Amino acid sequence: MSAFPPDSPSGARRVPLPSPFGLQGGGTLVGAEVALETYGRLTPARDNAVLLFTGLSASAHAASHPADPSPGWWEQMIGPGRAFDTDRYCILSVNSLGSCFGSTGPGSNDPSTGRPYGEAFPELRVEDIARASQAAADALGIDRLHAVVGTSLGGMTALAHAAIFPGRMRFLASISGALGASAAAVATRSLQREIVGAALRGAPGAPGVGQAMRWARKIGVLSYVGSSLLEQRFGRDQTEPFAGRPSGTAFEVENWLEHLAQKFERQFDPWAYWFISRAMDLFDFGDHGVLADGNPANRRRSAASLARAAARLKVEKALVIGVHEDLLFPLVQQRAIAELLKSAGVETELVELNSPYGHDAFLTETALFTPVLRAFLAQGQGTATSRPSRRAPDSLSR
Amino acid sequence: MSAFPPDSPSGARRVPLPSPFGLQGGGTLVGAEVALETYGRLTPARDNAVLLFTGLSASAHAASHPADPSPGWWEQMIGPGRAFDTDRYCILSVNSLGSCFGSTGPGSNDPSTGRPYGEAFPELRVEDIARASQAAADALGIDRLHAVVGTSLGGMTALAHAAIFPGRMRFLASISGALGASAAAVATRSLQREIVGAALRGAPGAPGVGQAMRWARKIGVLSYVGSSLLEQRFGRDQTEPFAGRPSGTAFEVENWLEHLAQKFERQFDPWAYWFISRAMDLFDFGDHGVLADGNPANRRRSAASLARAAARLKVEKALVIGVHEDLLFPLVQQRAIAELLKSAGVETELVELNSPYGHDAFLTETALFTPVLRAFLAQGQGTATSRPSRRAPDSLSR
Repeated sequence: MSAFPPDSPSGARRVPLPSPFGLQGGGTLVGAEVALETYGRLTPARDNAVLLFTGLSASAHAASHPADPSPGWWEQMIGPGRAFDTDRYCILSVNSLGSCFGSTGPGSNDPSTGRPYGEAFPELRVEDIARASQAAADALGIDRLHAVVGTSLGGMTALAHAAIFPGRMRFLASISGALGASAAAVATRSLQREIVGAALRGAPGAPGVGQAMRWARKIGVLSYVGSSLLEQRFGRDQTEPFAGRPSGTAFEVENWLEHLAQKFERQFDPWAYWFISRAMDLFDFGDHGVLADGNPANRRRSAASLARAAARLKVEKALVIGVHEDLLFPLVQQRAIAELLKSAGVETELVELNSPYGHDAFLTETALFTPVLRAFLAQGQGTATSRPSRRAPDSLSR
Repeated sequence: MSAFPPDSPSGARRVPLPSPFGLQGGGTLVGAEVALETYGRLTPARDNAVLLFTGLSASAHAASHPADPSPGWWEQMIGPGRAFDTDRYCILSVNSLGSCFGSTGPGSNDPSTGRPYGEAFPELRVEDIARASQAAADALGIDRLHAVVGTSLGGMTALAHAAIFPGRMRFLASISGALGASAAAVATRSLQREIVGAALRGAPGAPGVGQAMRWARKIGVLSYVGSSLLEQRFGRDQTEPFAGRPSGTAFEVENWLEHLAQKFERQFDPWAYWFISRAMDLFDFGDHGVLADGNPANRRRSAASLARAAARLKVEKALVIGVHEDLLFPLVQQRAIAELLKSAGVETELVELNSPYGHDAFLTETALFTPVLRAFLAQGQGTATSRPSRRAPDSLSR
């Protein structure tokens, strides 16, 4: 019997993972679980589920529901008549494995010690997030998802999920994701990890952990938001010149950054931040097409390994959305995803949007994203499709 | 008698400033000086001097000379037959007031205490750098400069100089400068100042000063260099995965950043960095056109104040160079400079270059910049021009 009957109402749950849960990097987790929220109801045929993968810092609370009426991080996108139409679909929103909002992560107690894992958490990969999230679909007894959709890190996770579980979803949407982080993204995230890691380890000359988290978040925010948005909103406005603010000036943009940084410090576990950030930098879609045959042309990140990874996908159609002003997951990376999928024979739609919000556009520009996602998800609606038999996840070929 | 006869050879000198030297923000410096290097010889008519303003972290050592044969920061641009042709021009390269390479700055001894100024250094503005640098031209007895040229902060300084000393130069070139910093630039620089300032003041939870300087420099470097350059050079290459590097990964781009950060930490005075960085954020070309008449339309940063500031300029021609990939001083700001000068009746050439080096392009892409600057500087060569009588600097209208 399924843990969640099809008529379960929207709400929050936790889903236990198979134990021990083996990780991509070789580690294992015992007694791990993921936090899940669902919006909308499963059809009796269980064919209307949409699995949603989040960005680095989001919780599973993507939308409000009766048990938690606070607005979710994608509130305007999920609900009756919205992009993720809860009259049609059952949305499964999972807190990433390794995060700190109910899913097992570095802030959770290690059952072998009774204390939080912290730095001893095993190496986390994007593929681990994908496989742990699939456990939610398994718990609901879903043979095939209607779609997998992810934003930012979630875009990477959706690609990984589609490569690990070919045929287990009809549609695939990657929003501001990547086949692998750019060097600039690696540089900015590794600097954030350096600051937070130094504080967590108490390195000589290191700042306090709270201060480190605030600085890391500020660096992050400046990589998420388009410069034109800051220009429109703040320019070089000053509140009270030289009023003893941290930098000795009082630019409005500083106050805004400080507000966001303090909020993040209160909400996010530092080691969880560190591990998920590293997982983003280590992700390489080409890992799913590596051949261990000793031929250099078949190694990681070769064109051949990427092509083989893409050839694994079995989806009816893919959607790739990018934003011109996104510096962290730039449009050139969105085009690379679309080109790769097309060259592997996947029908792929590439949508390029303009928004001063840059990488963060999907969070705020819901009016731009709604028609694109709504139309994409609706394509399969009402069409009878054959279902592949349920099978175990394919092992990775690395 | 001039401190530097026209036939002085290339070399390094220090030029005393008038004492006390009043600063734009109200403070004064006693016994201050600026470090100067000259390349090429003044003509007997003293009409071939080019005043060069630098970026935030550069010294006056823009090129090698007999007394210091080490390569300067613009070595490929300065010399016989180069963009700044020392067979034709006498280049005056000044270390910015407030810096730490021979000019008076926060690291210098305050004569009233006998100890370094540190945080007690008076508020520094771009206009102070411009006026202190003019002292070098005054020391050489130069009525009118052939040209003023500046890069980055130096572009701002060149604009300020031209507004403060109208008629004292024939040509004006701003390279990757701005009429005022963008909100994104303010945000990234104020974060750098917050980190360094917290360390210098020993704030609770603050890192050590050396660590703070390294992190601030990394943030800075990531704002200077185009992401496509990092992609070409490093991608996501790893040397030894998880080899205990600061962030727990070992991406090549991290090693490169760490190298640059350590070099900067060894070379630059932390408070000098803080004060010059703040001067960049506070700069507003419109300050030179403010009317203190109580009419809001005439205040700082109004279109009217910018237009009045531009109307002050008396140059034969202006050159504005920008780089498409520059995120810190983006092309939209270069176009704004050019449009403003044109609308004020200044003949202005706008050159837009492509370079993966982004904001740093002027340092490395000398082959791109050489023909543009060489042709621009040569325009006035050999033309007899009337000379205005020497006069005191116009006071600022703020």
